[in-house]
Amino acid sequence: MPHVLITNDDGVHAPGILALAQALQTLGKVTVFAPDRNWSASGHDKTMDRPLRVRETHLADGTPALTSDGSPADCVALALLGVIQEPVDVVVSGINAGENLGQDMTYSGTVTAAMEGALAGLPAVAVSMKLPANGSKPDFSAAAQIARRVVERVLRFGLPPRVVLNVNVPPLPLDQIKGIRITRLGERIYRDALVTRYDPRHKPYYWIGGEPPDGVPEEGTDIGALAEGYASITPLHLDLTLYSLMESLRQWNWEEE
Amino acid sequence: MPHVLITNDDGVHAPGILALAQALQTLGKVTVFAPDRNWSASGHDKTMDRPLRVRETHLADGTPALTSDGSPADCVALALLGVIQEPVDVVVSGINAGENLGQDMTYSGTVTAAMEGALAGLPAVAVSMKLPANGSKPDFSAAAQIARRVVERVLRFGLPPRVVLNVNVPPLPLDQIKGIRITRLGERIYRDALVTRYDPRHKPYYWIGGEPPDGVPEEGTDIGALAEGYASITPLHLDLTLYSLMESLRQWNWEEE
Amino acid sequence: MPHVLITNDDGVHAPGILALAQALQTLGKVTVFAPDRNWSASGHDKTMDRPLRVRETHLADGTPALTSDGSPADCVALALLGVIQEPVDVVVSGINAGENLGQDMTYSGTVTAAMEGALAGLPAVAVSMKLPANGSKPDFSAAAQIARRVVERVLRFGLPPRVVLNVNVPPLPLDQIKGIRITRLGERIYRDALVTRYDPRHKPYYWIGGEPPDGVPEEGTDIGALAEGYASITPLHLDLTLYSLMESLRQWNWEEE
Amino acid sequence: MPHVLITNDDGVHAPGILALAQALQTLGKVTVFAPDRNWSASGHDKTMDRPLRVRETHLADGTPALTSDGSPADCVALALLGVIQEPVDVVVSGINAGENLGQDMTYSGTVTAAMEGALAGLPAVAVSMKLPANGSKPDFSAAAQIARRVVERVLRFGLPPRVVLNVNVPPLPLDQIKGIRITRLGERIYRDALVTRYDPRHKPYYWIGGEPPDGVPEEGTDIGALAEGYASITPLHLDLTLYSLMESLRQWNWEEE
Repeated sequence: MPHVLITNDDGVHAPGILALAQALQTLGKVTVFAPDRNWSASGHDKTMDRPLRVRETHLADGTPALTSDGSPADCVALALLGVIQEPVDVVVSGINAGENLGQDMTYSGTVTAAMEGALAGLPAVAVSMKLPANGSKPDFSAAAQIARRVVERVLRFGLPPRVVLNVNVPPLPLDQIKGIRITRLGERIYRDALVTRYDPRHKPYYWIGGEPPDGVPEEGTDIGALAEGYASITPLHLDLTLYSLMESLRQWNWEEE
Repeated sequence: MPHVLITNDDGVHAPGILALAQALQTLGKVTVFAPDRNWSASGHDKTMDRPLRVRETHLADGTPALTSDGSPADCVALALLGVIQEPVDVVVSGINAGENLGQDMTYSGTVTAAMEGALAGLPAVAVSMKLPANGSKPDFSAAAQIARRVVERVLRFGLPPRVVLNVNVPPLPLDQIKGIRITRLGERIYRDALVTRYDPRHKPYYWIGGEPPDGVPEEGTDIGALAEGYASITPLHLDLTLYSLMESLRQWNWEEE
Repeated sequence: MPHVLITNDDGVHAPGILALAQALQTLGKVTVFAPDRNWSASGHDKTMDRPLRVRETHLADGTPALTSDGSPADCVALALLGVIQEPVDVVVSGINAGENLGQDMTYSGTVTAAMEGALAGLPAVAVSMKLPANGSKPDFSAAAQIARRVVERVLRFGLPPRVVLNVNVPPLPLDQIKGIRITRLGERIYRDALVTRYDPRHKPYYWIGGEPPDGVPEEGTDIGALAEGYASITPLHLDLTLYSLMESLRQWNWEEE
Repeated sequence: MPHVLITNDDGVHAPGILALAQALQTLGKVTVFAPDRNWSASGHDKTMDRPLRVRETHLADGTPALTSDGSPADCVALALLGVIQEPVDVVVSGINAGENLGQDMTYSGTVTAAMEGALAGLPAVAVSMKLPANGSKPDFSAAAQIARRVVERVLRFGLPPRVVLNVNVPPLPLDQIKGIRITRLGERIYRDALVTRYDPRHKPYYWIGGEPPDGVPEEGTDIGALAEGYASITPLHLDLTLYSLMESLRQWNWEEE
C-alpha cells in the first residue's frame, strides 16, 4: 500500500489539508505532517539555526497528524530524515487556499514544500485552489478529487527525478470543471501598490497592497487553463538556468577590468 | 548616473553588503535597503498580512541605508513601489555569506530578493561567496570587485526581461581567482541528518544537522567552476516549466476516474 | 446576569481555559478572548508598536471564542476598549497549567492578564493549577470548581479597586482538596541552571534548565497552603513600593556628588 | 573593584545603555549583556522552551558587550548562571527611553530585568528617563550621572534582599534637575483607545492607541517628583500581597458551595 506524506503552507488546521487527506486516504496510508501555523506570508526555508519541536495533533475529522514549529519544507525534511519511520512514496502539498500560477512559483510555500520532497528523491505534487471571486467560503472537495486523480497516476506511472507537478484547480463543483490541462507556466501581472499610513503615535507604516495579481490568459498556460474553467497541471523542475542566454553572456568581454 | 538598489539576506549590518555597497559606489548612485535582521533561515515572502516599518540607519562606514522589518523581497518591493523616489536601474542582492549553487535556488533569499527586482522589470544580480573552509573570517573584497564587474556590464549591455544573474565567488584573493565562467546550475548533494536531543525538561527537539551540502563538480556548472577556482555567473529565468515532460503527462489517461 | 471575560496565558485552545469557561457559564454570560498561541514563555506587554488581529474561533466544546495575535494583556485591553461591546463585570485569567506562587508574580502572564483587568477598574481573578508530580495529564475540573466559587463571591461582594485575587489549586480531586486558605505570597526558591550545548554546526547554545522552582512551605503563605493540600487565594495589589525602606534611603546623602 | 552588570529593554544598540555604561565605568568593571533587539513591546519572561544564543558585539563607543536573542530577564539569568564567570556585585537596567512610573511596573521590561537580578540575590537598579515632550532626541547624560550616583550608594550601603531601586529622571540638563526624591509609586491614568482600521484586503486590524498615560502628580510619589523637576527613586519589593484585604476575604463564607 503506498504511503503518502501530506503537508501544506496554511497550517495543519487549515481546511484544505483536511480535504486533501480525506481524498488521498483512498489511495493508501496517509501521514499528515504540517506546520503549526500559517506560513503563507512568512517564508519557507529549511531551519538550521534553531531546533524544531514536533507534536502530535488531530485534524478536525480526528485524523492523527504531526505538526512542527518549522516551515512547510522543515516538516517534509523532518519527516523524511527520520521522524517518520515508514518509507514515503510521494509528497503532496496543499490544498493551498489561493492559486499558485506563473511567477508565483518564486513565492509559493506550497510549491517549496513539494520541492523539498523532490530534492529528497521523491515524486511530489503541489495542489492549489483559486478562491471564489465573491469571497465565499472555499469548497475544497473538487480540488481534492482532482488531487487524488493526479496522485493516483503519479504512483502508477512515476515521475523523473526532481520533478514537481503543480496542480491548480478553479473554484467550481467537480462537474463544472471542464477537464485537466497539461500546461506551462503563464505570465503573471502583479499589481501591488504601496499604502502608507500613520500609527496612533504618528509614525508611518506601509502595507504592500494593491489589487490581487492578474495574468495573461494565454492558450497553453496554467493561467489560460484556469481562466477557461480547466484544472491545470504544470510539470516543474528545479533547473532555473536560462540556457539561451549563456552564449551571449560569454561575449561580455570579461577580461577587461 | 545609474542608480543601484542593494539589498541582502543577511541583514543590513552584515559585512557582505558593506563590501558590495562600497564597490558599486564607483558605478553610480547606490541606495541600500535591506532587512533589519538576518533572514537566512526564516523565509523570503512578500509580506501582505501585516504592515511594515522603514527606518534610516547607517552601514559601518557611515553610508546611509534604509532598513525594514520585512524580508529581503519586501525591501525590494517597498523600494520599487515608492519608498524610494528615484528610478532604479539595477537590483543587486548580496554579498551572501555562503554560496548559492544548483538546487540552492529553491532556498536562497539572496536570489529571491533579486527575483523581486526582475519581477518588477529590472535587471537583477545575486552575489554569493563561498565561505573559507577553515572557518576563518570571510574577506568579501574580491567578491565585491567581481560583483562590480558584473553590474557594470549589466548596466552597459542590459538583460532580457525577468532574468537574474546568479554570481558565486570562491573565497580567494582576486589575483588567485582564475577568471569568470558562464555556467549552468549544477547538481547539489544534500547531506542533512536528523539530530534528536532532549531539553532540560526531558522533551525532545530536533536539529536539521548533517554535513554542509556537497555537489557534483561537473564541467560547465556553477559547482564545477567554483571547485576549480573560478567565479561563476549563471543566468536564471523564472520559468520552471519542464517542457520535455508535458507530452508524456498528456498520455496519462486523464479521462478515467 | 453578570458578564465574565475569560482569558489565559496558554492560548485559546489550552484545556485549562475550556474547563474554566464551562464552570463559569453557570454564573452568567461568558466571553472568551484569549491569545492564538501559548505565551507562557514569551511575554505579556501591551502591544503598541504593531496592530493586532482579532478572529473568531471555537473551544473544543463548541463555545464561541475570540482570539488575537496579541498577548494575554492585549486580549483584555482589546476586549475592554471596545472589541466587546457589552460591559464586563469581572476578568478571569486561567486556568494556567502550572502554579503561580510567591515571586512567580514577576513572570506570570496569567497574573498580568488579570492585572490588565484590574487597571481598567474591574475586579480580576487569576487561576493556576499545580501540575501533577508524576507528569500525568492535568485534570482541571477541581480547579474550575474552585474558580467558580471565587468568582461567584467576587461578583457578590466586590473587590477594592486595582486588586487581583491570585488563586492556586493543588492537582487533586475536589473532595481531596482540604479547603481554601487566604494567604500571603511565599518565598520561592529558584533552581535554574545553565545547560550549554553545541549545535550540529559546532556553535554553542544555552538552555535555562535546572530543577523546577521549589519554595519555603511556610504557614500562612500560598506555598505552604498548596503543600498541605489547600487551595490558596492571595490578594494582590499593584503597589510594589517597599515603604519601610524609604526613610533609610533618604539618609543616603544625596547632595554629595 | 566592583563588577556592574548592565542590561536593558531597548536592545544593546540603544543610546540609553551606552550612556549608562559610560557613566558606570567610573565605578568599577562594567559588563554589558543586553538583548539583540528592542523588547519594549514584546515581553520579558525567562525563556525555557527554546535555547538561547549569545554573541559578542560592541557598543557605538567600542565597549565590548554580550547580546542574546532572549529577553532582558534572560540576559541577566544567562549572565548570572555562568555565561559571565566573574561574580557580579550589582545589576543595573536601563536607561529606558521613557519613564516607568506607578502601575507601569506591571509592564516594564526595564524593571523586570532588574528584578531578575534581585531574585538572584543581588542589589538591583532600574533607570528610566522621561522623553522630551517636544519629540526631540533624548539626551541621556543627566540620567546617566544620576544613575551613577545611585549605583555608587548601592555599592556603598547595600540593599536588603530582593529589592529594586526604580529610578526615573526628567528630560532636563543635570543642573536643571532640582534634586533626588525618595518616593512611593503614584497613580497612573491610562488613556488607551482602540483604533480600528482596514487593511488593503478589507480585513480589520486594531491599534491600541490613544494618548500616552498621564498620572496624578501627588506629593510624595514618583509621578509628583518628576512633574516638579526632580528625579525619583522608588524602592520596590516583590511582595505584591495586599495584606489589608486578607481578613475580609476570610469572611467570605468559603464553606458554602
